[in-house]
This record gives sequence, C-alpha cells and structure tokens, in this order.
Amino acid sequence: MPKRLVHPLPTSDVRIGGGFWQCYQELVRTTTIPYQWGALNDEAGDAEPSHCIHNFRVAAGLEEGEFLGEPFQDSDLYKWIEAASWTLAWHPDDELCSKVDSAIELIAAAQQPDGYVDTYYIINGLEGRFTNLRGKHELYCMGHLIEAACANYQVTGSRKLLDVACRYADCVAANIGPEEGKIHGYPGHEIAEMALVGLARLTGERRYVDLASYFVDQRGQSPLFFEWEGREHGNPFRWGDTYMKYQYYQAGKPIREQRSPEGHAVRDVYMYSGVADVAEATGDDGLFEVAEDAFRAMAGRQMYITGGIGASEHGECFTFDYDLPNDTAYAETCASVGLVFWCRRMLELTGDGRYADVMERALYNGTISGMSLDGTRFFYVNPLEVDPEACEKDYNKRHVKPERQKWFGCACCPPNLARLVASLGNYAYSASEDSLWVNLYAGGEARCTLAGVPVRLAMQTNYPWDGKVELHVDADEQVEFELRLRVPGWCDEFSLEGAGEPADAKPEAGYLRIRRAWEPDATVVLTLGMRPRVMAANPRVVDDAGKVALMRGPVVYCAEQADNGPELQELRLDPTAEPEASFKPDLLGGVVALACPGVRISDAGWGDELYQPYHVESAPTTIRLVPYFAWGNRGLGEMSVWLRTTATV
Amino acid sequence: MPKRLVHPLPTSDVRIGGGFWQCYQELVRTTTIPYQWGALNDEAGDAEPSHCIHNFRVAAGLEEGEFLGEPFQDSDLYKWIEAASWTLAWHPDDELCSKVDSAIELIAAAQQPDGYVDTYYIINGLEGRFTNLRGKHELYCMGHLIEAACANYQVTGSRKLLDVACRYADCVAANIGPEEGKIHGYPGHEIAEMALVGLARLTGERRYVDLASYFVDQRGQSPLFFEWEGREHGNPFRWGDTYMKYQYYQAGKPIREQRSPEGHAVRDVYMYSGVADVAEATGDDGLFEVAEDAFRAMAGRQMYITGGIGASEHGECFTFDYDLPNDTAYAETCASVGLVFWCRRMLELTGDGRYADVMERALYNGTISGMSLDGTRFFYVNPLEVDPEACEKDYNKRHVKPERQKWFGCACCPPNLARLVASLGNYAYSASEDSLWVNLYAGGEARCTLAGVPVRLAMQTNYPWDGKVELHVDADEQVEFELRLRVPGWCDEFSLEGAGEPADAKPEAGYLRIRRAWEPDATVVLTLGMRPRVMAANPRVVDDAGKVALMRGPVVYCAEQADNGPELQELRLDPTAEPEASFKPDLLGGVVALACPGVRISDAGWGDELYQPYHVESAPTTIRLVPYFAWGNRGLGEMSVWLRTTATV
Repeated sequence: MPKRLVHPLPTSDVRIGGGFWQCYQELVRTTTIPYQWGALNDEAGDAEPSHCIHNFRVAAGLEEGEFLGEPFQDSDLYKWIEAASWTLAWHPDDELCSKVDSAIELIAAAQQPDGYVDTYYIINGLEGRFTNLRGKHELYCMGHLIEAACANYQVTGSRKLLDVACRYADCVAANIGPEEGKIHGYPGHEIAEMALVGLARLTGERRYVDLASYFVDQRGQSPLFFEWEGREHGNPFRWGDTYMKYQYYQAGKPIREQRSPEGHAVRDVYMYSGVADVAEATGDDGLFEVAEDAFRAMAGRQMYITGGIGASEHGECFTFDYDLPNDTAYAETCASVGLVFWCRRMLELTGDGRYADVMERALYNGTISGMSLDGTRFFYVNPLEVDPEACEKDYNKRHVKPERQKWFGCACCPPNLARLVASLGNYAYSASEDSLWVNLYAGGEARCTLAGVPVRLAMQTNYPWDGKVELHVDADEQVEFELRLRVPGWCDEFSLEGAGEPADAKPEAGYLRIRRAWEPDATVVLTLGMRPRVMAANPRVVDDAGKVALMRGPVVYCAEQADNGPELQELRLDPTAEPEASFKPDLLGGVVALACPGVRISDAGWGDELYQPYHVESAPTTIRLVPYFAWGNRGLGEMSVWLRTTATV
Repeated sequence: MPKRLVHPLPTSDVRIGGGFWQCYQELVRTTTIPYQWGALNDEAGDAEPSHCIHNFRVAAGLEEGEFLGEPFQDSDLYKWIEAASWTLAWHPDDELCSKVDSAIELIAAAQQPDGYVDTYYIINGLEGRFTNLRGKHELYCMGHLIEAACANYQVTGSRKLLDVACRYADCVAANIGPEEGKIHGYPGHEIAEMALVGLARLTGERRYVDLASYFVDQRGQSPLFFEWEGREHGNPFRWGDTYMKYQYYQAGKPIREQRSPEGHAVRDVYMYSGVADVAEATGDDGLFEVAEDAFRAMAGRQMYITGGIGASEHGECFTFDYDLPNDTAYAETCASVGLVFWCRRMLELTGDGRYADVMERALYNGTISGMSLDGTRFFYVNPLEVDPEACEKDYNKRHVKPERQKWFGCACCPPNLARLVASLGNYAYSASEDSLWVNLYAGGEARCTLAGVPVRLAMQTNYPWDGKVELHVDADEQVEFELRLRVPGWCDEFSLEGAGEPADAKPEAGYLRIRRAWEPDATVVLTLGMRPRVMAANPRVVDDAGKVALMRGPVVYCAEQADNGPELQELRLDPTAEPEASFKPDLLGGVVALACPGVRISDAGWGDELYQPYHVESAPTTIRLVPYFAWGNRGLGEMSVWLRTTATV
C-alpha cells in the first residue's frame, strides 16, 4: 500500500482562478503576506514586533543585539518565504521576489560554517545547541526552513535556499542519529519528518529519508530520550502531570503503538503526515497502517464537524474519544491546517476519497474560520459555540475569543493558513502517469502531461455555493487517460453530462473514473446535489446529544445572534423540514444562507424563578444560518453550530 | 423589617430523634467527630496530618516546632469544638466532653497576654500579625473561635472558651477600627461578622456588634484597604486578573453596592449572613435590603437545583447570571453549608418560607451530597453531571472527583458539614414570644415557653420519604399560641387534620398559621403531597436547555450508571409521564427511588462515523433515578441530574 498512487501537480502548472478560493488566495497575497513582512521587520505598527529579521541580522553579524521573541521565532520567516513563494507561482511580482531573495540572503548569511542555522542558539551560544530538542524547536525550525526551501525552489528554480536547507539538514544528521556518539533524539515539535521526505523527493538524496525515518522510529523508544535529555541538561518539563508529560509530544511510546490521536494536536497531525511520508519513502506497510489507524480514530472519534481538532485548551491537545465540547473547544487553526497536510498524504497513498472528504471539511470550515473576511484578523481557537459574556467571565473559556484578534507576536496560525491557501492548487489536483484527479472543485486550470501528451484542464464553477462544475479538457491531440472526478462523501445525488459514460455511473472510493480517449476539445459537466443536510453526531458525543447541525455541500453552518437574537439555546430546529438555501450577494461577502423552520422557547414569565415544574411556552420562528467560516464578522454576539431540535428524540 | 421576627430554640431544648436527620447526626457523632479528632492530633493513619494540635502546643510553649499546615489551620480545631459541643447537647458524653475541654485549655494556654490567639503568627512572629488581613485568615480564625465558643457556652454553660473568644475579639477591636491609629481593615474571608453578632447576643456586649458593623461597612470603601495593605506590607495579590482581584474577596466596592452574588462563594454567603445579622442588630433597613437583593439574585440566577452555588472552579466563585454548567460545577459543600446559614438569618428576619425553601433545598441535596453514606469520605465539589473518564482526562474537570475522597489536610468541608448537621435542631424550629415555627420536618421534639407556659412539641415523620407529619403538643395547661407549620414552596397539595382549622387553610408566606388555645394534649397531622415532580430550568440556563430534572419533596434525583448503564446522554425522559416512586429499604441505606418511562437512543450502527444525516434509532426504556445526595456510593460511574426529554420542545 505505501506506494504513492498520485502526486500533486507542480504549483506552476496549477492556477486557482475565479470564485471562492481565488478570493482567499488574493486576500493572502494582497493582505496577509505584505502585513506579515511588516511584522517580521517590526514595522507593522499595530502588531507586536516579531523580532524575526532582527534575530537573523544579529545572527549574521549585521547588527548588535540580543535574541528576542520565542525560540521558534525563525519559523515565522520560513513560513512567510514559503507562502510568498507559492504566490509567485500564480502571480509573478518582482518586488515580492526581491524581498524573498533578500530574506534568503539573510538566512544564508546567518548560517554557520557547519550548516547550523538557528538564531536562538547562534546568538545565545552555540554550545547550547541540540541540548533541548524537546523544548527549543531547533528541528521544528529546520522543518519549516526545508518546507520554505522546497517551495521556493519549485517555484523559482533557485537553489539558494535549498542549499541552505540541505546544509542544515546535513549538519543535523551529523549530530543526531543512531550512530554511537550522536544524539539519539528527535524533534519536540514534529514537521522535520515530512519536510525531509519532501527534500529527498526534490533532491533525490536518500539520506534525508533516512533522517526522517530515524526521527519517526526513534520517537518514544525506551529509554525515553526526553527523560534523558531533561536530566542530562537540566531542562524542566513543561507539563508536570503524568498524563501530559510525554503524550503532549507523542514521545511516551514507540510510533507503532501510537494508533490514536494523542497530545498536542498540531504536533500530532504533523507527526502522522511525516509517518505517511516515511512509510511511502521506505515502503513500510506497518508504518502506513499506523497512520491509517490513527486517522480512523481521529476522524471517527475526535474531530469536530468543522474539521477542528484538539478539543482541549490545556496543551492544545486531543483528549479522549467522543469528547468534543463546543464551547470550550480549542480546535486551533494550525491543527486543521496540519490535518489538511495529513489528509493529502493519505489521499496520495490510497486514492481514497474519504481522505479528500476530511480535507475538504477542514478547508471549508475549521481552517478559513481562522481568518476574518478582510484578511486582517485571526482566530487561533475555533469554538463551535460562543457566548461573549462567558468568554469574558468563565475562566474555562478564557482562550475562546468572541472576535478575531490582531496579529500576535507568536503568530503561528496566520502564516500557516497563508502557506496553505497560497498552495491550494497542490491539493485540488493530483496526477499519476495516465490519470488526472480532481480532488477539490474550484475555478481555474491545471496542466499536466498524460500518456505523453500535454493536457490542459479548465474548470469553471461557483462551488461551494453551486454544485455545477464545468470541466474543459484541452489537448493538442486525442489522448487516452482517466479523469477522476471526486464525488464527495456527503453527496448522494449527482449527474454527469458529456462524459459519454452511463448516466448511473457510480463513484469508486469517492471518485468517478472516466477513462477514454479524450478529444482535443472535450467538456464534461458534473453537477453535485447541494440540498442542505441536517446532520446529527454520534450519540456518544455528549455535547451534541439531542442537537443537529446544518451543512450544505462541504460547508458547515451556524446560527449567529446577528440573525437570530440572543439566547440561541432557546431555539429548536425542526430536523424534518427542508432548510431553504439562498445566495445573498451582500451578506458576508456573498454566501448561501440557510433558513429553517423551528420554534423559540420563551423565557418570559419566568421572572426570578430558576426552576419550575416542567412547562414550555414557545412560538414558531425561522432560524437563520450562515457559513461557519464566516461567523464573527458582524460584531460581538452569540454563535452556535449545534442546535436543539423539535424532534421527540 | 430588620427586626428579628423569630429566634432559634436553644440547642438543649431541641432534639432530632428518628428518621433521616438522626441518621446523619449519629454519623457525625460516631464517625466524623472521632475521626477528625484523630486528624487534628495527627493520629488518623490514612489522612494527611492536620498539624492543628501541634501548632497550638507549640504556640502555648508546650513543645518545640514550626508552624505547619495552612495559615487557617486553627479553624479546624474551632470547627471541631463547635460540632462536638453541639452533639453534647443531644448526646451527653463525658469522654468527648473532656477532649473538648482539653482542647479549650490548650487554646487558652496559647492565648497571648493581650488576647491575641492565632498560632500562625504566635509561632512565626507576632510582629507580622494584622499585616495581611486579606490572605492570612486571622479574622477568619477569630470568627470560627467565636462560633465554637458560643456553641460550647450554650451547650455546657462554661465560659472558658467564651472568655478566650471575647478577649481575642477585644484584642482585634483594639487594633482594627475606624479610630485614628488603628488599622482600617476587614477580613479577607468573612465569618467574623456573623460570629461577632452572635457573641453580642450571648454576652449582651454591644461592642461586638460595633466591630461587626465596622467590618461590614468598611469593606470595599475607597481607598481600597487591600490595595493599601498589599502595597504597605508587600503581600502579592493571589488573583492577578482584574476580574478576580477584589471581587474574589467581595472587596472592590462598598457593601451597599453589592446586590448580587460575586467572588468566592463561601466568602460571599458568609458575608451576607453577617450583613443580615448586622442589619438586625443595628436596625438598618438599607443594609437588610442589600442582603434581600443579593439573595434574590443568587437564588434566582446563580443557584443549582441542588442548592449548590459557586459555578466555577477558578476561585471557587460565582460567575454570571444563568451560568450553571453541570459537568464543571464547583458547588462546594462549604458554600451550600454557608447558604443554609444565610437562609436561616433571612428566615428569622422575615418569616418568609421562601428562605426556608432554599434552606431545605441545600440541606437535602448540595450539603449532604458532600459526605458518603458511611460518613468517611467527602466531596468538596458537587457536580451535577459526571463522567469518570472526563474527570481523569479533561483538564477543565480535574477538580471534579467521580468518587468521594478521604479526609484532606485542608479539610474545610467535612467539619463544616459536621457543625451544621450537629446543630440542625436550631434550623428545624424557631420561636417568638407566642409562636412556635416548624421550619423543617424531622422526627424529634422541641421545648419552649409560649405565653409563659412550657410547651413540648413532639414530631413523628418519615419525611422526606413520606409526607405525613404528626405533631403532638404537650403542655401542663391550656395555652394559646400560634403554631406555624411550613408548607414548602414545592408542595401544591397538602392536608391538615386535627387542627380545628378550615380544611382549605392556605399558607401565608409559606406557613400555615394555627392560632388557638391548645389543649394540654393535642395532635395535628399535616400531610404533604409527595408526587414526584418533573422540573425545568429557566430557558436562559444554557446548560439545562431541553432538559428536565426530577424531584420528590425536597429531594433532587439523578440517574446513575449503576442503574442505567453508561452513556447517560443517550437517555430521553418522557416529561409528561408520572414517575413511579417506591421506597427501597436495601438501596443506599433506604431511599425512595424513582422510575420514569423514556427511551434510549441507540449508538449501534454508527461504527466509526462521527457525523451522519439526521436519523435516530431508539428503544423504550425505564429510567431509574436515585436521590442526588446519595450518588457515588456504588463505585465509579456516570451520573446526571439533568436529562434530555422526549418532548418536541
């Protein structure tokens, strides 16, 4: 199984054009990336200074000063370079290009003779390096450096940053590894694993797979490295309690015993992304099954309907099966971004649309909910139920913000979202030698060579607001290949025209397979049924018991105070009614809104009574819902994804 | 209004005999009090040492050593003396009496020449005394000393401890007060206020009212004393956040502006008990209205159905209106005990049965839930919904214990419950010159002099399991007085026989008033309807929306896993059905259990799916409920007070 069935198309061969995702890409390109450049240079007036460029300049000997900010501050610059580089693929921009190049020059200037590059230790003393892999993020920063380098090389063809990355990876491999005399350690925050496999794919250098493979398999082996390292170097553990001490880092047991989500959610999904990559690169069936089992456990028992993961603020962690509280959810934006990484790798290895389903769930909900519609404010935490008063006064909800915040000093989520959105084309399509897969529906085009013939696929759609997707195949000559069109798991009604296939074609593992000799100028139209769906959660989920959530296509909906007034818990939705969907061009930048019949329980007449014999007064009402990702763009107010019903059970 | 309408009967004139409360009193007398004596002497093998007697011995110069335990450790001994003294009123016991006397001797020996007695500062250096009224509990310990002294004096007639208490109170008054040169402070943890008024009532010394009154009115005056004190003596604030800094101590604004529950719940209800006492002692209408308003806000918007108060673990605090989460509730046992103190005072001032209703709610539910049926294990926290796995793995529920714990080093709740239960007779009856009030129904008897004639009232009942209450009036001669029998607010059906009153007598302010010339040997029988009641919460309570709770009489019920299996959230109770009540002699020491028709939602067929289009499979079931106070006595398992329903709204 761990043979990579498909691979993404080179970013330069994909373009998102028009519609939903182009808006997000443009927002990232025109707002997030310039804003972050200012922040990195401590020039964004209204944000906390990042100190990031400062640290690199000090490390490079270009100015005097101390290291400022978090130990993982370097990663901010790497994430920015990555996101900026991806945008250059679909929007050439000389000015941005020279900023990226100047940043790369600076990193190269800070790199030490043996390849080491981490400004925290270069400034504070190299004698301390590699003494706190658990807490100081050196290998995490290396991972982001590699990801940035790979993106930049793929888009620009320049080897400058790629060479820096290779030299740092070689430096790490010279110091950490199985050989006697080396440190038998692994990253406290994963990402290096998937980054190294990507580097190996790009450079053809097997040794990067070896290092990634070592990181994956050494993790959690006895004696526990972090136990040794903490003792040896006197690093106090961040988490005192036994439950969190190692689990937070996925470092308490060997990877082959880690078959369910555990610990810090971002770390965990980054780890499994790396596990999938290493399994593919080494052909390790057993390792792949670990990722498969963990994915099933995660998606089946610990994932919010929004694709949010990591239920608890304490450690930003996964908790336990079916524990999905809506009002104290952590569901960090970065964790959903990482989930998309993991999904793509599982999809590439299996071709199974179930992974694309989860990917799409996270993309349309739990990731982009992290950014305001104008691209200037961000959620790190993505709750499914919010009462602004509770956020202020309930200590357990202090992490839940009822409004998106400005850029932070510790700005993990915004640039992570930026690099995802900027590279979305890599997720929309994938290809093998004679197949082109469409995983996500978004206006734009993709180019690839199939059976030796260059093919161009143009897609027109107003998805997710409309289910109609027009695909135009353009080639210089007739060419036989298989077009695989994803039929999302949520879709139980679809039609396909112009494909010359039987009208009742059934998807296999989530994809319609259209294999034929394509004429040079062919069109197929796939129409996905977009009837709103009333969803229930597994009855074991205590917090969703007796409630329903509305979805339409991949989009999860929520009720906001702006449309429904306060006290959303007083609403009861009729789960048997057909919700009415209508496109509202002036609402939240243009979205399909839903309206559903229900009732509102009256609290009039209760006065100062808290408890009374059971009686209910209610009046019919129309419950109005908007896409979850767009909540919180209209001022302070309550929000709820899950609503109580008028059903008898 | 702040004229005390009634007063409790002297403890020696009241006896609880037979039935529900006698069991609890005997448990306290035979188990809790001996156990705590061992703990105080560091001789309870399985409990953390208290160090309490040790500290007094060191302070008295009887042994060498350091102060050990919490700064408020002295209060443990005072609470024990109080509880033990109350039991001596209804169960003379020479051995216990001599233990109490030895403890009193020890306290007297530790008392300093100027009356000061607090072992923390006597041992650590008297120069530090009165420099941290906010944090070090000197005045809190004084309050408990006074309460113990008043109890001991009332029961034994010995002035020994009362004199110690008076001398300490005089010492405090010499150092703290409005006069120039004195400290303009007040207790960081209230209790001294009500204790001092009690001391004044017993001794006739007005100066103790003056000190209590000063404490009440100085609280929260500008400039804020705790701000000054912290700066002057360098005491760091415990609570960094603005929201908690002063509110935790009810010390951010003057008492007359504090008209809703705020901050640490135990402190808050102790404060309002003192406010009511001072209002009575000074005839201050305005001050009484503060207590009235606060009570209405507390009982109407921030009290659990169990009489639990203080919703949040963070600061053990009240939070905000209608914020009553069931699974993260704090609802400290001590807070419900304090609520009973407050209720009694409001009842004595107003004669209004609404206060007795809340008192009874707390007594039968949120206080005694704090103790196991064998009297050896305790809950400090009294949640209304428990999943043992969540208690272990959800950081927000780490304070919620799924099983009662053994005695703690910081043992506030068990002895507090002990002193309440041991003095319950003081709550059951009250009297004015020509009226005898029955506030609580419990087997036993009360003696008092009415219109100059000694009267004995004997009560027989199996309340709360049975609603029949037989009252026998016994006097040497015919005597005219008013017998006031409480008809609880929950009771909409009752009958009265033998009273010679019209059968349709209506209660006034919660009491049936039977004024007549009583024959020397008269009997009346009050029968309260005990049909189980399906209760709903105010729709503004998010956490109870769509749910119901069952009550019968004053007893709140809950569903436990032991009777219903796991996944209690899958149960749906039919709120229109009549629950079936039956006394089970072998269940939980003998309780009335309830059974109610409902359905159980099936989670079979969901497999690894978390979300599916709405559909429900369910099967009829019988939901079995037991009294809330007795939950958690049958091993680990889920518990829930509030249950979802089969109703359409």
